[in-house]
Amino acid sequence: MEGEQTDFVWGVLDMVPITNFPDIRSRCAIHSKESGSVMVIPRENDLVRFYIQLKEVERDPNTKTESREFSGNVDDKKAKTKGRIDRSKITPELILKQAQEILQPYTLEMTDLDWFTGYQIGQRVSPNFSRHNRVFIAGDACHTHSPKAGQGMNVSMQDTYNLGFKLALVCKGLAKQDILSTYESERLKVARDLIAFDHKFSRLFSSKPMIPNADVLDGADMDEFHQVYIEGNKFASGTIVDYEDSVLVKKEGANAPDDNGCTMHPLASKVPIGRRLYSEVIISQADARPVHVADRLASDGRFRVLIFPGDVSTHPENMETLHKFQPFIDSKDNFAKKFTPVNAFSDSVIDIITIHGSCRYNVEFYDFPQFTRPKDYKGRCDYWKLYTGIGNTYHEGDIDAYESYGIDKKKGAIIVARPDSHVALVTEFSTDGLNAVDGYFKEFMLPQNDVVLPEKDVKGHDKKRFVQPRLAV
Amino acid sequence: MEGEQTDFVWGVLDMVPITNFPDIRSRCAIHSKESGSVMVIPRENDLVRFYIQLKEVERDPNTKTESREFSGNVDDKKAKTKGRIDRSKITPELILKQAQEILQPYTLEMTDLDWFTGYQIGQRVSPNFSRHNRVFIAGDACHTHSPKAGQGMNVSMQDTYNLGFKLALVCKGLAKQDILSTYESERLKVARDLIAFDHKFSRLFSSKPMIPNADVLDGADMDEFHQVYIEGNKFASGTIVDYEDSVLVKKEGANAPDDNGCTMHPLASKVPIGRRLYSEVIISQADARPVHVADRLASDGRFRVLIFPGDVSTHPENMETLHKFQPFIDSKDNFAKKFTPVNAFSDSVIDIITIHGSCRYNVEFYDFPQFTRPKDYKGRCDYWKLYTGIGNTYHEGDIDAYESYGIDKKKGAIIVARPDSHVALVTEFSTDGLNAVDGYFKEFMLPQNDVVLPEKDVKGHDKKRFVQPRLAV
Repeated sequence: MEGEQTDFVWGVLDMVPITNFPDIRSRCAIHSKESGSVMVIPRENDLVRFYIQLKEVERDPNTKTESREFSGNVDDKKAKTKGRIDRSKITPELILKQAQEILQPYTLEMTDLDWFTGYQIGQRVSPNFSRHNRVFIAGDACHTHSPKAGQGMNVSMQDTYNLGFKLALVCKGLAKQDILSTYESERLKVARDLIAFDHKFSRLFSSKPMIPNADVLDGADMDEFHQVYIEGNKFASGTIVDYEDSVLVKKEGANAPDDNGCTMHPLASKVPIGRRLYSEVIISQADARPVHVADRLASDGRFRVLIFPGDVSTHPENMETLHKFQPFIDSKDNFAKKFTPVNAFSDSVIDIITIHGSCRYNVEFYDFPQFTRPKDYKGRCDYWKLYTGIGNTYHEGDIDAYESYGIDKKKGAIIVARPDSHVALVTEFSTDGLNAVDGYFKEFMLPQNDVVLPEKDVKGHDKKRFVQPRLAV
Repeated sequence: MEGEQTDFVWGVLDMVPITNFPDIRSRCAIHSKESGSVMVIPRENDLVRFYIQLKEVERDPNTKTESREFSGNVDDKKAKTKGRIDRSKITPELILKQAQEILQPYTLEMTDLDWFTGYQIGQRVSPNFSRHNRVFIAGDACHTHSPKAGQGMNVSMQDTYNLGFKLALVCKGLAKQDILSTYESERLKVARDLIAFDHKFSRLFSSKPMIPNADVLDGADMDEFHQVYIEGNKFASGTIVDYEDSVLVKKEGANAPDDNGCTMHPLASKVPIGRRLYSEVIISQADARPVHVADRLASDGRFRVLIFPGDVSTHPENMETLHKFQPFIDSKDNFAKKFTPVNAFSDSVIDIITIHGSCRYNVEFYDFPQFTRPKDYKGRCDYWKLYTGIGNTYHEGDIDAYESYGIDKKKGAIIVARPDSHVALVTEFSTDGLNAVDGYFKEFMLPQNDVVLPEKDVKGHDKKRFVQPRLAV
């Protein structure tokens, strides 16, 4: 892996503190003038996690010559390190003593020690995440960084989450193997961005604080630190992960990236393409229940085509357009049928969801075309394909997904979401738009017209079919 | 048990319907003109529960003479019954056929039958729920009614929930055995109210609908039916259960009951005494997290004394009053210590929670008296005793528990909640009020000053002590 070992050494304590520090139950960072820094993370029950910068820790002299850990191009940095720490010398008492110095004049004592550790911050990333689209590495195998951004486990899981749906599509014979190369192109950038952030954050954290109005302004600027701290929350939420244009993400036709780096299409002017679709509340046409888009887009390996036909009650021509979609969707040559094995549930590869922009009371369930209430092999209706994006809910108040997504209620739009809920494509609400969706899938999906699954047993009971994870079943 | 068997027979189907009835995913009731009624209750996945009134079911002729089921005073009603139904004659197909007739002109077919049953509505209640404060019956053993109010399991669990905390208090030697007599006085009334409601509801449901503007206005008035339907939701939520004045509920000093039968004290003019304390969001002073009062009042057998000192920032004299509570609470002769065994956690019988009415930022955690941040045998602070009732939260918006509970921010109030969260007492925020709280507990609690539990092990780890259920430990 490429990167560096730093000389900053940290200790971690999970314990129930006895202290008169008033903000002990708030997540906070304390920069002492001379004694280093501590990060306070309140946990469940009365536990508090402390990340504490350690000043004096014995080094293992042998590690000064060790080079296995460092890649060729950071030799200059390696030369400057003092060597690796001797972890056996780090005790809870040593960590506590340092924390007490940092927290002065407040007092700190330790009870109910739950766990502790010590580590040296290393920031490294592998130059490759895969070989021949057949061997893949993820998580700690390809990137390491300090734990303070709270991203070690999160980013690692997201690696495999990204890889998982692609592997499933390829292994099930639904998509071309080419799509697997997007794993590295998408996740390597995330790892590099994260390590760049961690680099900045760790150094700000480990540095002395700058004393405002002092004669010499050195050390970490606390305003900058606060800003970077807030930036870190975006990593924690995962919402700034932005995948570049590829076979799976189509940014053409969109506006140039905005100040936050978001690429938006004019038809859905608040939906960043390549990022996870932000969840909004929508209301089921069938039963008036509010549901979060994120809950409706369960991670079960399926793509979603979200059709926003606009306010079909005020604009009847939009309802006409929607009805024109029916023959397109029925055709065996188009995405809705072409990529789904024969005898599989019709939505088990690509799930088509319609979110209209009319008040639920102004339209009827049966006003909409048949594809918004598909029937299965037993004749059972799927009631969970048709929603309204506007209305009022008891717990969530007024909702307007059209407003939140920046979709005009006259123009409408179509959004394609990948199985990981990242936005793949934004296009117009029209048969042309539907053709664009078709083009998207035809680039990497494999036709299934000749793949025949066993016929389903009409006498069997499968009342959970709409809620269990499934892909091409 | 006293009560009656009706001649109304119902069938129940849990199945996935195939229908063109548009409201199949909404809870609704359908009164047909001639064929009876059906209640539609959408369930998880695609299941729908149907309650269907059956017209022709064979009776078991022997039951006409059976009297074991009926108490003496309903002999006249028994004489009129046609006898008990023969349940073996009720099949899913028979129930479905009836439902199809009721739903006309809409169609209804059945797939994925999950469960079915048939029953005859009986409404009976036992005249006694206990003997000698030593033997108790609960649930179906003392009340039966139709299942359509959704209250069979709920009311039965509430019976034992009511009994449970009283038994625990008595068995642990904390309270006098007398309190057990409130089980019958409290729950018998609930059972009678419920059966009276069920009686009205079932008859409205089972009757023909009244045809508006017809020559002869007979049958069930649909407006009245709708009103009773809504009333039923209050039973379902449990919020109208109202316990009368007793050793455990003190309504003296309160206003006369209002139109809804709620008895409120002027100092907390929206808190019905004897009913479950309605949950409001409050904000922890220590960590700014919003928490529902209901979550803070976990059902762990403990009483809660909720002190509302008002806006202590605008009214410093209120903070002074609060500080005067400290010696009272410290005294071994008063409720806070007197009824808790020696060496038990100080809040393990009576939990004192302070909810002030100032903006969290205008007061400091350490401005408040020591009893709002008690320390345990290890010196660990309990951070979960002090809250503000006003402020702004991300998910819940602006909150004002003082407004919701009808408590004046200058006067304040004290509320005592029983272990089942029913409001026991509302009194003034003053040492007089604290004395009233003391009087409440002294009436039925047993002094524990001489009950000495083993000393706790200072070296043991018990980091979960604040969250695990406990009573006098």
